[in-house]
Amino acid sequence: MLSAIGIDLGGTNTKIALVSENGKIIKKDVLPTLNPFDKKEWVLQTDEVINDLKNSQRECNIAGIGIGIAGLVDPFKKVILQAPNIVGIDNWNIGEDLISKFKISVEIDNDVNVMALGEFLFGEAKKTKNAICLTLGTGVGGGLILNGDLFRGSNFMAGELGHITINENGPQCNCGNFGCAETYLGNGKIIKKFKQMMEADNSSILNGVKDIDPSKIFEAAKKGDYLSLRMWSEFAAHLATLLSGLVNLLNPDKIILGGGVSNAIDVFKGPLIEHMKKRTLKASMEKLIIIRSKLSQEAGVIGAASLVFNKKES
Amino acid sequence: MLSAIGIDLGGTNTKIALVSENGKIIKKDVLPTLNPFDKKEWVLQTDEVINDLKNSQRECNIAGIGIGIAGLVDPFKKVILQAPNIVGIDNWNIGEDLISKFKISVEIDNDVNVMALGEFLFGEAKKTKNAICLTLGTGVGGGLILNGDLFRGSNFMAGELGHITINENGPQCNCGNFGCAETYLGNGKIIKKFKQMMEADNSSILNGVKDIDPSKIFEAAKKGDYLSLRMWSEFAAHLATLLSGLVNLLNPDKIILGGGVSNAIDVFKGPLIEHMKKRTLKASMEKLIIIRSKLSQEAGVIGAASLVFNKKES
Repeated sequence: MLSAIGIDLGGTNTKIALVSENGKIIKKDVLPTLNPFDKKEWVLQTDEVINDLKNSQRECNIAGIGIGIAGLVDPFKKVILQAPNIVGIDNWNIGEDLISKFKISVEIDNDVNVMALGEFLFGEAKKTKNAICLTLGTGVGGGLILNGDLFRGSNFMAGELGHITINENGPQCNCGNFGCAETYLGNGKIIKKFKQMMEADNSSILNGVKDIDPSKIFEAAKKGDYLSLRMWSEFAAHLATLLSGLVNLLNPDKIILGGGVSNAIDVFKGPLIEHMKKRTLKASMEKLIIIRSKLSQEAGVIGAASLVFNKKES
Repeated sequence: MLSAIGIDLGGTNTKIALVSENGKIIKKDVLPTLNPFDKKEWVLQTDEVINDLKNSQRECNIAGIGIGIAGLVDPFKKVILQAPNIVGIDNWNIGEDLISKFKISVEIDNDVNVMALGEFLFGEAKKTKNAICLTLGTGVGGGLILNGDLFRGSNFMAGELGHITINENGPQCNCGNFGCAETYLGNGKIIKKFKQMMEADNSSILNGVKDIDPSKIFEAAKKGDYLSLRMWSEFAAHLATLLSGLVNLLNPDKIILGGGVSNAIDVFKGPLIEHMKKRTLKASMEKLIIIRSKLSQEAGVIGAASLVFNKKES
């Protein structure tokens, strides 16, 4: 069976998996990403893991290596242009080095494009003409499938969904802009906001709990905790502003939500859709499907492997 | 020489032109659009005009008829789904009726898509991979050229640029949403805002002038009128919020501004770019070109004819 190596190269870990052509993980492994980054060492370690993965299978027809990187990349020159979370990796022609090492085709893209492509080939965006994939985590990012293809923009910068302004008078974002969606929807912002709410109202069952995070606020909301429900309702209102703009602009078939915060979709989807109905043009909203990512935890490596399968098809 | 008939079917007028395959108007005419609309009569009148246009030319190889309509259309079924400004035209299969009348290929699309396509084939978006065409007039609309093709969305609703929220707490728009770009950038909003400014500050040279419109505010700004300059500076700030979101999302090569209000580009472009630099990711802004529409007044008919030429090429 045809397969591909999918590599999710992040600031903390490098996840490596052997992925079948139907998008299933055959076997996987994780390496800590060296800090500062050491290119030669990383190639050696990756080589070892790939050999282990190969050797664990009787038949193993590997079509190529696909890599998703948290940063700005040139997928055609196969160069990592800028990866703020991985010191010492900028401007690395990773494609060249890996092709000369493995004598196999190598494809790269940024982590969110890769996730969108994974959803497009194997997940909730399968055979969808126009899909917006939004990742809700520490940051807010996204990938666009437009006219049945990954849309990268003119210099590979498309899909910065977290840095669309939803309130021009809003708080300043890390990017310098004001009122970016991320300043309302990012993990840290949710926690900060909820702590402020708890200071003003001590009725929550999370009162006094340490290490508040979105998953705890989600669990509390499911138990009917008023303050947690209010938190998700406000989150839904801000998310609706962002998504409504995208719907009015791009008129997609589907919006797919991934990342840790999307675990709470059961609690925020109802108010999200109500808000969106008020903010969108009717014909664009009617048939829209909003759904949680199917690949979730594995989206990074499956998406990375998708780069190889997508290339073979095109 | 190959040519096409371009028809701009608006609420007030129907403009009809014979357009050459290099995008030049050979000859044109205008009919008042009947109100309420009469399909049979319109076809007869249009037939007459087209015959006049044809007869005025010695050689006239007409490849087809292209029509741009201010409303929601299905370009594949060639049906006008909904045109709020033309009473009695909804759900008309204009394609079927015109094909049976003229025995020639007929293409339709909405007026802003048609303008974007005109810019793509013959104007400022020529050979541009990714371009956003924004029309600034009574309403704010747009067309998207993505990956070298007109992007229509999943049910032909894409490009509603005026109904992207730039301030989720902003004033209510005619569409029902709050803080749409159009509530800050539309013709009427500019006039209303400027009148409010004149009430608070009577220093403007436009003080006492009747029928204030954006062109008068533009002329006054060129003469250094402080209040008019402040007006365009505020306009630029709001426009920058909208365009910055689009740049972060789509990473286009070009943004092309059309419609009456774009005449004032010389006054608002400077502050627009300054604001955008603060709101965009650097790599997306670096190479971006913002420019006024080349086709301007003729964008409707040339764009409509472009539907025919574009079809022939694809």
